[in-house]
Amino acid sequence: MASTSTLPAGSVGSVETRFVDLPAPLPLDCGRQLDQVRVAYETYGTLAPSRDNVILVCHALSGDAHAAGYSASAPAASTRDGFAAERRDGSAGKALGWWDGMIGPGKAFDTDRFFVVSTNLLGGCRGTTGPSSTNPMTGSAYGSDFPVITVADMVRCERAFLDELGIERLAAVAGGSLGGMQALEWAISHPDQVDSIVVIASTHALHTQGVAWNAIAREAIMRDPAWQGGDYYGTGRAPEAGMGVARMVGHITYLSAPSLSERFGRRLRSGDDIRYTIDQPEFDIESYLDHQAGSFVKRFDAGTYVRLSRALTYFDVARSHGGGSLDRALATVRARTLLIAFSSDWLYPPVASTEIEAALAGNGKPVELHVLDAPYGHDCFLLEEAQQIPLVRRFLGLP
Amino acid sequence: MASTSTLPAGSVGSVETRFVDLPAPLPLDCGRQLDQVRVAYETYGTLAPSRDNVILVCHALSGDAHAAGYSASAPAASTRDGFAAERRDGSAGKALGWWDGMIGPGKAFDTDRFFVVSTNLLGGCRGTTGPSSTNPMTGSAYGSDFPVITVADMVRCERAFLDELGIERLAAVAGGSLGGMQALEWAISHPDQVDSIVVIASTHALHTQGVAWNAIAREAIMRDPAWQGGDYYGTGRAPEAGMGVARMVGHITYLSAPSLSERFGRRLRSGDDIRYTIDQPEFDIESYLDHQAGSFVKRFDAGTYVRLSRALTYFDVARSHGGGSLDRALATVRARTLLIAFSSDWLYPPVASTEIEAALAGNGKPVELHVLDAPYGHDCFLLEEAQQIPLVRRFLGLP
Repeated sequence: MASTSTLPAGSVGSVETRFVDLPAPLPLDCGRQLDQVRVAYETYGTLAPSRDNVILVCHALSGDAHAAGYSASAPAASTRDGFAAERRDGSAGKALGWWDGMIGPGKAFDTDRFFVVSTNLLGGCRGTTGPSSTNPMTGSAYGSDFPVITVADMVRCERAFLDELGIERLAAVAGGSLGGMQALEWAISHPDQVDSIVVIASTHALHTQGVAWNAIAREAIMRDPAWQGGDYYGTGRAPEAGMGVARMVGHITYLSAPSLSERFGRRLRSGDDIRYTIDQPEFDIESYLDHQAGSFVKRFDAGTYVRLSRALTYFDVARSHGGGSLDRALATVRARTLLIAFSSDWLYPPVASTEIEAALAGNGKPVELHVLDAPYGHDCFLLEEAQQIPLVRRFLGLP
Repeated sequence: MASTSTLPAGSVGSVETRFVDLPAPLPLDCGRQLDQVRVAYETYGTLAPSRDNVILVCHALSGDAHAAGYSASAPAASTRDGFAAERRDGSAGKALGWWDGMIGPGKAFDTDRFFVVSTNLLGGCRGTTGPSSTNPMTGSAYGSDFPVITVADMVRCERAFLDELGIERLAAVAGGSLGGMQALEWAISHPDQVDSIVVIASTHALHTQGVAWNAIAREAIMRDPAWQGGDYYGTGRAPEAGMGVARMVGHITYLSAPSLSERFGRRLRSGDDIRYTIDQPEFDIESYLDHQAGSFVKRFDAGTYVRLSRALTYFDVARSHGGGSLDRALATVRARTLLIAFSSDWLYPPVASTEIEAALAGNGKPVELHVLDAPYGHDCFLLEEAQQIPLVRRFLGLP
């Protein structure tokens, strides 16, 4: 436990991940259902007696329920990666939540006013039922039998979970990247239950190059012989080699080319001279990628990775809700919408947010878009708190 | 043989790849030397009695000596990939050279005037000595014992090869990407032998993100268990899974995001409905990548791939020739320089050419840079002949 006296200002303090077992099978878009779904979650702040101050925070591909504060239970390896991980303070191995900069007293999602709920999403590997979980029908891990899920399935799971907490309405649903997709899906599929959504560095449908990067990452994993068709659990082997490559691809797409150049340049690990090696890192950037891959495979499950990657490429609200039209897909939205995009984000470029803004505005819906000038690419949503906090606070009616 | 009557205008016709064995060991930057180096080459046009009309064409990572015309010997699978491969005419399985649009009578490298020489580069897998070649010391493939080579080594090999042809001076050295690096290296290391260089979609030193993509591609190959430390030759297994992933990464970096969106969008292979699959291509772009990977691994050697990839990340003329200064590195150049870059090329962005131009101009050297507005990314150097041909012809003094 972090004692209150040593907490940095704005921290929610020491937190613990808890679990809820859904009472009924969860129906899925693919036509199947999942029995005995468990959801891992954390909460920050206090639920108002009127239950009208709930903000649901949704995480991105590699996140988990631990969004804020210091986890007493989490492993020393933070769930924040790369540039974001380096922003951790040196809190004696207590992992800081992945969106700690945004959640807490006085922050964007202000826990003095709101009750913030964060879950590990469906298909995850950090406490919520996913491919590495035990299939109650067989007593062993789902593996390849775990269904192919969608963002709508994640939202369905979150809805069922909130029912268990006795929460009907949401003051806001918020998230970045895949988390922003969930927020958008909430506003479309549950228009009467969502007052507002905060969609950051996200899209209504990933563009072609983004689909390609995700396909490449999945290929890297599934071509690893240790993948074993997805049934590697309990075999003593996991597709760590492929996962490492997938993570490297992801990492480079999360950052901007200029930020990489500024940070690493062409610096050699050995100083001025090359060492003529193909199988050892020679440039600092190579060493960095190697390190990122190595730490990721220790904490993340490949089966989860391929399913979440697939879900976020499938996500396409025009297709799923509008018969091909984004305007029609967003026609039923009632939530106020805050869109934030980042100038240097080439994986989820601002144009997608512009398209969402135009479709909502065309439908007469209240929407605001801010394209922030920031250098770090897609990772900005985890790094650029200073610019985001005032926007989100104002949007949420906070002083 | 393509009969003359059926040849398209501007074709050099049917060609054959020939071979030269270097008479002396080839010294390398790493301190080792290679014995009994063989060089695969093709020539187009006629060598002038004065031997002053020679243009050396240097290929990029996945190219070979077959730069122009129809190869009677080459496999039906063209050495042109992707968007470029689709530009092949339907010449009954006779593979068209990778730069056929630029080389031939009346074209940029006009064979009515110039004698164009094209070699497979050192370390290659298409006839020139490389990791898959037999090591004369052991009688089996070099494999992991093949040295780590540099662009300067490639140029050294080309120099020794041209000696065998009795060619001392070069009217021009030309190439795109890694080929452009060789041209630049020629101008620096052999200033008295090169009249001009044509450096297209290339750089004096790859930027950080480019270094990262190459590292990821090599990792994909070397993490494949079939890589076997580089000694997979003769084992009946090759790292095809990893090579496929490497090729997918390469492919996406060679094309621009807008060109991918325009070409593939988010079209599903099955029409309107997703099929809920993680291990089958679902989007057209996924199917395209799968196809590109599959055809590449059939024609290219992984050992060559990792070495050429390493060589092009090492390439840094400021480091190797200028004590860290690009200005100093280019101070001894005597060749006239034509630089061409493409607006949509994010792997070899135009800024690198601008830097070369500035350094040459600062040294009082004749240089011209053209940044062409073209949509296809790095692959433009293989696709945008219409814009390049008049620039190159004028630069070479052709009408």
